[in-house]
Amino acid sequence: MPCDEKKRRSLCPVTFALDQVGDKWSLLVVRDLMLLGKKTYGEFLESAEGIATNVLANRLKCLEAGGIIEKARDPENKRRYLYSLTEKGFDLTPILLEMIRWSAHHDSDAGIPKDFLDMIENDRERLIAKVRAGMTL
Amino acid sequence: MPCDEKKRRSLCPVTFALDQVGDKWSLLVVRDLMLLGKKTYGEFLESAEGIATNVLANRLKCLEAGGIIEKARDPENKRRYLYSLTEKGFDLTPILLEMIRWSAHHDSDAGIPKDFLDMIENDRERLIAKVRAGMTL
Repeated sequence: MPCDEKKRRSLCPVTFALDQVGDKWSLLVVRDLMLLGKKTYGEFLESAEGIATNVLANRLKCLEAGGIIEKARDPENKRRYLYSLTEKGFDLTPILLEMIRWSAHHDSDAGIPKDFLDMIENDRERLIAKVRAGMTL
Repeated sequence: MPCDEKKRRSLCPVTFALDQVGDKWSLLVVRDLMLLGKKTYGEFLESAEGIATNVLANRLKCLEAGGIIEKARDPENKRRYLYSLTEKGFDLTPILLEMIRWSAHHDSDAGIPKDFLDMIENDRERLIAKVRAGMTL
């Protein structure tokens, strides 16, 4: 699994985004970092979707190569890395929020907290600022 | 390639969206329908990204199974289908617009018309209404 941003399919801006995060797993790692307060390989691995270790390792590598996440050694455990979103990664917030809104409207099983959905609909800029400041669901 | 919405990975709303359109091709077909005025299998096949015939046939089948697109026989050529977005498909517009905005900020090669980008940033609801009414890029 190569990092797909290396082969550019077209100059279309939708394609640019899909070439970097358009697969079934990359945005789930971004979600874990952005909305669920997860920071480590072990935490990503525990997410409900059950990502395989090799897929996770590849996606972390590609997201880092694409400048969407960065990693630093955990000061409390030098053998562990802590991952975080870059500015470019945080700029994906509106895309994720629109996905959540779409699912809220089209998935009868979506259990999205009503106040969170209200903020997506009516107070998006403040919600984005809160997410950047570390608010988690 | 099965239609992925059949196997649900979790109840997360981000996952719901990714299970339906989270791959490198589905949203390009949606883009073709939504922003480029394309309607037929042959037109999708001609897009710059060079989708393979078997991938296109699968994605059209899955998007239809997911209620995102629908097809009808072309009244002018009964052997051909005309595809269109459903309401659920049109509701993906904000996700695509946010992808375009993200790429505009992070892709130095993005050639996005300035007035289109201005509308995404400052007059989004009107832009979404125009897209629904058939405006193409």
